[in-house]
Amino acid sequence: MGNFDYKHRLDRCSSLMKEEGIDVLILTKPSNMFYLTGDSRLCAFAMVTQEGKVALGMPQTDIDDVKQLARFDHLVGFEDEVGMIHSLAHYFMHFGIKQGVLGLEYTFLTQSMMSMLTHPHGKPKGVTVKDCTSIMSKLRLVKDEEEIEHIRAAAKVSEMGMRAAVEAIKPGVTESQIAAEAEYAMRQNGAEGFWRTYVASGPRTNIAHGLPTLRKLQDGDLVMIDIHPIVNNYSADICRTVCVGKPTGEQQAAYDLFLKAQEMTINKVKAGAGMIDLEGTMHGVFKDAGHDEHIFGPPIHGLGIDFEEAPLPPGHAFFHGEKAPDPLEKNTVIAVGNCGLYVGPWAVRIEDTVVVGQEGPEVLTNYPKSLFK
Amino acid sequence: MGNFDYKHRLDRCSSLMKEEGIDVLILTKPSNMFYLTGDSRLCAFAMVTQEGKVALGMPQTDIDDVKQLARFDHLVGFEDEVGMIHSLAHYFMHFGIKQGVLGLEYTFLTQSMMSMLTHPHGKPKGVTVKDCTSIMSKLRLVKDEEEIEHIRAAAKVSEMGMRAAVEAIKPGVTESQIAAEAEYAMRQNGAEGFWRTYVASGPRTNIAHGLPTLRKLQDGDLVMIDIHPIVNNYSADICRTVCVGKPTGEQQAAYDLFLKAQEMTINKVKAGAGMIDLEGTMHGVFKDAGHDEHIFGPPIHGLGIDFEEAPLPPGHAFFHGEKAPDPLEKNTVIAVGNCGLYVGPWAVRIEDTVVVGQEGPEVLTNYPKSLFK
Repeated sequence: MGNFDYKHRLDRCSSLMKEEGIDVLILTKPSNMFYLTGDSRLCAFAMVTQEGKVALGMPQTDIDDVKQLARFDHLVGFEDEVGMIHSLAHYFMHFGIKQGVLGLEYTFLTQSMMSMLTHPHGKPKGVTVKDCTSIMSKLRLVKDEEEIEHIRAAAKVSEMGMRAAVEAIKPGVTESQIAAEAEYAMRQNGAEGFWRTYVASGPRTNIAHGLPTLRKLQDGDLVMIDIHPIVNNYSADICRTVCVGKPTGEQQAAYDLFLKAQEMTINKVKAGAGMIDLEGTMHGVFKDAGHDEHIFGPPIHGLGIDFEEAPLPPGHAFFHGEKAPDPLEKNTVIAVGNCGLYVGPWAVRIEDTVVVGQEGPEVLTNYPKSLFK
Repeated sequence: MGNFDYKHRLDRCSSLMKEEGIDVLILTKPSNMFYLTGDSRLCAFAMVTQEGKVALGMPQTDIDDVKQLARFDHLVGFEDEVGMIHSLAHYFMHFGIKQGVLGLEYTFLTQSMMSMLTHPHGKPKGVTVKDCTSIMSKLRLVKDEEEIEHIRAAAKVSEMGMRAAVEAIKPGVTESQIAAEAEYAMRQNGAEGFWRTYVASGPRTNIAHGLPTLRKLQDGDLVMIDIHPIVNNYSADICRTVCVGKPTGEQQAAYDLFLKAQEMTINKVKAGAGMIDLEGTMHGVFKDAGHDEHIFGPPIHGLGIDFEEAPLPPGHAFFHGEKAPDPLEKNTVIAVGNCGLYVGPWAVRIEDTVVVGQEGPEVLTNYPKSLFK
């Protein structure tokens, strides 16, 4: 499935842990576990020491499956939550960790999961806890060639999903049925899964997170389709807005403006570019056209194993436990166009997956951009 | 979409808040928001006072959409996370809450969301926090007739999804492609969405959470399909295990045993039955047949707006912030069969959605149970 250089990843992780004063990590977020161990699953954990030792815990039913996927041989199965806590205690003892700083994923763990992972029957009393979100983000920020190949494959699948969805657009079809076409095409063409699909139509294009409903498309509606296939554990992100029938002049003008803003922004993507500058470019086009009031949301976010990951925009970043992003590095992968232009009774959005190149952008999602079906 | 009695729900919520010493709730879990307000969405919140006053916060783009759905008129939009914190401060002031106990969803909120909702720019200093999970679970535990109708509709859709998936089973098809058929059929037949789909085949039937992969089905494989459509915000849960081609005698024997255990357990479902007793019935059949080592997971959980909700089994319940479940009440809805029988190289599982009746069970998911396609 992947021949990633785990030794290299763990060495980098150790350096970051030292910088942040973290002695040991317990990871439960599947994307973080996958990055460092080759396996990811629900209800499991990876303990990673500053010396690069890795130990895994999982439901006992899953041991054989994990052996096929993970690159490490410290495995322990548990039957239930109590067993999970005992397996943590076992590993703390095995690694001789009685004090120090434990890194936990504050942006992923629920409050009750936090209590479980820091339960006094598991964690030694002398071990304190600290957020490790920024370590894992920094580690995963720049992609290697194999990772970019997987994202490229996901981008191809996203184009097939988008085509199927757009072709199904006609009056009387529900938003959920449009989503069905996209998801079906993605799975049939090599996706092992997908993150949540957004399909919003008519006045619903105006909401921030347009999950599909049973609303039926009507002639003249705009339809916003935002999909995120997963191929070999890596994701792509594409959004298109298409009209049911013939768009009005106002719809076409807003679409053309959004497209201009998105493409100007993409053209400025390269190593060394700043997230805030790129955001300023995109929003600037809208503002220059008198749309100050019609902008919502930061236009850029990173993607990779997760469909939304670092780099995250400043402001958002703070509340997601991230540090303010540095200038973009070569081989970071971002989605550009995540904000909408909310004109009133409807909105438009166009979003693409872009690799940050040394000299400029490489756009991975190339489904045609047109308001007409 | 629903003519639920919100007044009645809020009155019951107030009583439970008084019992638990909670003065005000901030809800962000979509299912909890939906239950008390009629609207649910990502990145939004509902503040609910012990006097039954309700105020909502949401992305500013969403205000018009929320007005269509929510039954309450205290709405405030925000542009970003800072705005969200300010809207919380505004509502605390509006309701005159300077001290008291704030209930938060410890089993849903991430550590970083907890920090945001308790940020000193939002929450008054004199307000302390407490987990409100058990209040919301108790509130939603027993379903009214309209809720059961929605779950019944979701159950019908789950049967169509299962039929499409089972019909697609043949050697060479990937697990993801089987999932595609189920999901497509559910959306085409009235589901607005679905919770995660599990499709696991061959040795992968042995893992606890078998998300689909690109593994191709082989002759003789067992295939475990577990799906969860959402119709009008309510969910159903069905799992079937089907063989690719002709099952071996050992596979058929395990299947027959699981079916016997599941049906014996379902037959004991009625008002007053205990979760632990039902679990004992199911596991007892396996143990009597010498399968002590092959059981994993609690066989029963509740469902409703969420596909897994209270009542949760004891043990699990503790770590999910729930109290140990009382005897089942009439019109609670549960899924029976959630554990697997893990025989070694493969496992079987059969799961159905069941309404707890006064005198006995009403099974809502009636797709045929057969190891043969």
